[in-house]
Amino acid sequence: MAWANNVLRVNLTKGTCISEPLNMEWAEAYMGERGLGTKYLWENMDPQADPLGPDNVLIFATGPLTGTMAPTSGRYAVLCKGPLTGAIACSNSGGKFGAELKFAGYDLVLIEGRSESPVYLNIVDDKVELLAATDIWGTTVWHTEAWIKKTHNDPLIRVASCGEAGENLCRYACIVNDLHRAAGRSGVGAVMGSKNLKAISVRGTKGVTATHPEKFMDVVHECHRVLAESEGRKALTELGTNDMIDMMQEFGGLPTRNFDDVQFAGTDKINPSAMFEVKANGHRNMVTNKACFGCTIACGRIAHIDENHFSIVNKPEYRMASGGLEYETAYAFGPLLGVDDIDALTYAGYMTNEHGYDPISFGGTLAAAMELYEMGVITDADTDGVALNFGSAEALTIMSEKTGKGEGFGKILAMGSRLMCEKYGHPEIAMHVKGQEFAGYDSRVLQGMGLGYATSNRGACHLKHAVFDEDMEDISGNGKAEPCKTSQDHVAAMDSTGLCLFVEGAGMNIGHFVDLLSADLPTSWSQERMMETGERVWNLERRFNLAAGLTAADDTLPKRLLEVPAPSGSGKGKVSELAQMLPEYYKARGWTEDGRLTNELIERLGL
Amino acid sequence: MAWANNVLRVNLTKGTCISEPLNMEWAEAYMGERGLGTKYLWENMDPQADPLGPDNVLIFATGPLTGTMAPTSGRYAVLCKGPLTGAIACSNSGGKFGAELKFAGYDLVLIEGRSESPVYLNIVDDKVELLAATDIWGTTVWHTEAWIKKTHNDPLIRVASCGEAGENLCRYACIVNDLHRAAGRSGVGAVMGSKNLKAISVRGTKGVTATHPEKFMDVVHECHRVLAESEGRKALTELGTNDMIDMMQEFGGLPTRNFDDVQFAGTDKINPSAMFEVKANGHRNMVTNKACFGCTIACGRIAHIDENHFSIVNKPEYRMASGGLEYETAYAFGPLLGVDDIDALTYAGYMTNEHGYDPISFGGTLAAAMELYEMGVITDADTDGVALNFGSAEALTIMSEKTGKGEGFGKILAMGSRLMCEKYGHPEIAMHVKGQEFAGYDSRVLQGMGLGYATSNRGACHLKHAVFDEDMEDISGNGKAEPCKTSQDHVAAMDSTGLCLFVEGAGMNIGHFVDLLSADLPTSWSQERMMETGERVWNLERRFNLAAGLTAADDTLPKRLLEVPAPSGSGKGKVSELAQMLPEYYKARGWTEDGRLTNELIERLGL
Repeated sequence: MAWANNVLRVNLTKGTCISEPLNMEWAEAYMGERGLGTKYLWENMDPQADPLGPDNVLIFATGPLTGTMAPTSGRYAVLCKGPLTGAIACSNSGGKFGAELKFAGYDLVLIEGRSESPVYLNIVDDKVELLAATDIWGTTVWHTEAWIKKTHNDPLIRVASCGEAGENLCRYACIVNDLHRAAGRSGVGAVMGSKNLKAISVRGTKGVTATHPEKFMDVVHECHRVLAESEGRKALTELGTNDMIDMMQEFGGLPTRNFDDVQFAGTDKINPSAMFEVKANGHRNMVTNKACFGCTIACGRIAHIDENHFSIVNKPEYRMASGGLEYETAYAFGPLLGVDDIDALTYAGYMTNEHGYDPISFGGTLAAAMELYEMGVITDADTDGVALNFGSAEALTIMSEKTGKGEGFGKILAMGSRLMCEKYGHPEIAMHVKGQEFAGYDSRVLQGMGLGYATSNRGACHLKHAVFDEDMEDISGNGKAEPCKTSQDHVAAMDSTGLCLFVEGAGMNIGHFVDLLSADLPTSWSQERMMETGERVWNLERRFNLAAGLTAADDTLPKRLLEVPAPSGSGKGKVSELAQMLPEYYKARGWTEDGRLTNELIERLGL
Repeated sequence: MAWANNVLRVNLTKGTCISEPLNMEWAEAYMGERGLGTKYLWENMDPQADPLGPDNVLIFATGPLTGTMAPTSGRYAVLCKGPLTGAIACSNSGGKFGAELKFAGYDLVLIEGRSESPVYLNIVDDKVELLAATDIWGTTVWHTEAWIKKTHNDPLIRVASCGEAGENLCRYACIVNDLHRAAGRSGVGAVMGSKNLKAISVRGTKGVTATHPEKFMDVVHECHRVLAESEGRKALTELGTNDMIDMMQEFGGLPTRNFDDVQFAGTDKINPSAMFEVKANGHRNMVTNKACFGCTIACGRIAHIDENHFSIVNKPEYRMASGGLEYETAYAFGPLLGVDDIDALTYAGYMTNEHGYDPISFGGTLAAAMELYEMGVITDADTDGVALNFGSAEALTIMSEKTGKGEGFGKILAMGSRLMCEKYGHPEIAMHVKGQEFAGYDSRVLQGMGLGYATSNRGACHLKHAVFDEDMEDISGNGKAEPCKTSQDHVAAMDSTGLCLFVEGAGMNIGHFVDLLSADLPTSWSQERMMETGERVWNLERRFNLAAGLTAADDTLPKRLLEVPAPSGSGKGKVSELAQMLPEYYKARGWTEDGRLTNELIERLGL
């Protein structure tokens, strides 16, 4: 069956690496990846622990479908208490690392304690070692990966590591694997850095076997068939996620200049059409697609920047082509900052990639800094002499590098918008939920999205629920609570499988997941069991947060979204209707009026 | 449009790298890759040149579909005069290198002359340099790739290189790119080595644009749809090419112990079922699939060997998992040598991969050496004390390493079967056409295959025609000439596109190619134009060979296939009916009775 039945427990304080059998009761109840990782986190740490202290636990979790022949099966999740939010953090990633971890025979790797000096964890099937990372400390994730492959003389090793941002405890540092893919949000990379763990390198040779291989492959082929036929898949392949920028611009849900507006004049300079446009020098921004393990969608982009465009990029470590714009990066570096220079956006994307930090939170924090700068709260004296005006491509590229390296004002930006704005006495400028910055959908126009942001267990996040269709159909908050709750459970289940969420917009549905899991695993799965599993996961995350000290008061949105009407677009004049939706949501969840879990719920879900 | 319109001409003697416009007249007539490469070879070298001398020209050629979004678009071909055959050599490969070469803006790279000292060609878009390869000379292709990426601090560089086998002028050395893919046959790697050219490294950022992008993507999606639905594709994905071993065993077309038999008792130990079997130590041979650029088939395998199985593999450079068995390797190391040890086969596969030589020709040569050994013609004194008996797994693994490194008897094996058997006075033992060893299909049972072998322009080859279905239906030679000719033209056209031949068994047909090319290129394509292009390519290859000194006498098979009846299987008692088929074939080709091109034909095809 496609659980590896094995958990690797690493204690960095003691220097021990011990494997233990997977708790099968938990596996049956929480499936894998996000769900099972949450259960292991809950059982293994005090939710009140300091996220950047040794008592935080960092979990790398694969799902039961990770590494199988199912489409997009490269995924794994990273869980811990998040330093950006103080809430549970769960960020997942694609690429090939997750599959390789499974091939090595592990469902989860659980990292406890803190190493005295920098180390990396090297896994070669059953052989697991903590090795000195002195030579790679202070270097990029790209250099780290190359160094590890070279040192072990094996180019097939897969590496997940934190960059300098993680080492420097940037609150939104991420963990990057396979050069281009990241467990991106909530600062999981800072937790890795805080533990003096530079990287995990894996080589696995055990493969993965389904319980019913022939049945499993039948479903796999059917999944590939629907993916191949799906219009959604075609759009993702052709245009990538940045296709969304034109849709949000037209709809008027595109946060612009730190949420001063919801439409941005410059989208046609940074949208997919612009990425495909052949420039005067014969180059396009878009070079080619990039797919993850087992993926036939290939939404990833490899993009080029004009090396003469910015003096700043004309230096030895400059990369001529690397990961290209996805929607969230395009939004957070474009509209949100008022920048319409595609080369600047792409270059800043390289910086977040190689130094390892979350572009959404960085964009959100820089947007807040720009507002503070334009208000006169901060000046050139604070910003190393860089004028932080909205629309400045140079501010973006310079600050992206400073933040990555932890230099000058980059150290302030690395705090995230909440702490930075508190520092400067203007907390109202920070656009966040629970400390985490927003994705590119404005809550005044997409009401269900706003409810999802407010109630997401890891802070503002667009990936933990799915009411986009409902929001596009109806810009009011009416009837959004129930679908928000249901989709949160649905997504929590999907996130526990080991496949990518994008397969759903690309033709696959929950029925395919049920069939895959039933052929993959020893017991049978149904839609009901999946949904209940998702509900279990969501509620355990909530329970973690409540135990960590969060309350209903954290299920909110910034005043700008609750009180300042959208100035244009489909939702012109509207504010978020959270006050109406939230009680309905708590009711749909079966929680108390102050957002706590009832005993009946805990008992029903077996938490 | 998806020709890059650019040819890079490198003269190693002079040390010059100059780009020139693509000859558009030739491009329209010969398309790309195999066809266009043949035309450039014909126009740029004397066919009588010494294949291992400076006057041989080595061409790396992409096709017009290479690097596009079309499925399996990673392919490129390597052309030169082959040192194994003295005939034209054209070997193609997948992986990512070909696409990257296109991204850098080149249709072809044409290598002339010979460098005084080892160099590698580094291409970064328009910046092209010959750099010293002293540090990587004498190392494997795996080490070479890692060294280049490290030296240039860029893990996205793609590398094609020759291993020690190429440097040592092994007559069947190959060129390996992206660790696992090879331009495998006819000794193109030895030509690279003879020129003191260790590698070509490429980084391209220009992407590829079709003439009619929207139309092109419509066809691409349709191709993905048929691939997803195809039963042939499913089998290739699940079982890989080695699925063929069971089919050939049952049919009785599986050359065994240097063609002493056509069935082998040990296939169930080395077939896909054996690759999937979980061993006592919990490991399977098969770890996972591996796909090339833009490919949704993923026929490639990553396989594991038991590291305690052979003392020989227990050493630092041992790789625990690498490229796994494909059919031709399984055949050439298994039945052809009488070896049924899957770990030995897999390990020898690693050796051919990393040291860079063709497993088919190596297996064929070792099979001949085993026969010579069992005849007593060679003894332990010749073979470094290794008993070269049929069935010896140790002989296989030891000799695979010696051949790769050019040590001891490996130097003799590196000559290929023809020269080796001539050296020992037994040319009749060498099983080859034009000096090149056979793929895993016996000509006594598969008559059309035999005709294809005999007439293939690069010597015995299973990939230059496609009459498999006809051969399975009818084991006589009747009516095989015409389909052999037609399929040779068909394949020559396919090989000129930049896609992989395997898409045809996986659901795509010539109509898809016509649609892709018509949307990709400035002029319209039809099935007729494709077939005429293929015929043009085939005849120009033939013309090259005739000019090189080959004659109709080279269109033959070894006596063992013409005179010794198949001892078992469907074709028991049969020999090859080449004598009947060949005149029919010449007639179908419109050649003279002695296999030469007529003036009318030359004129009609515009050669």
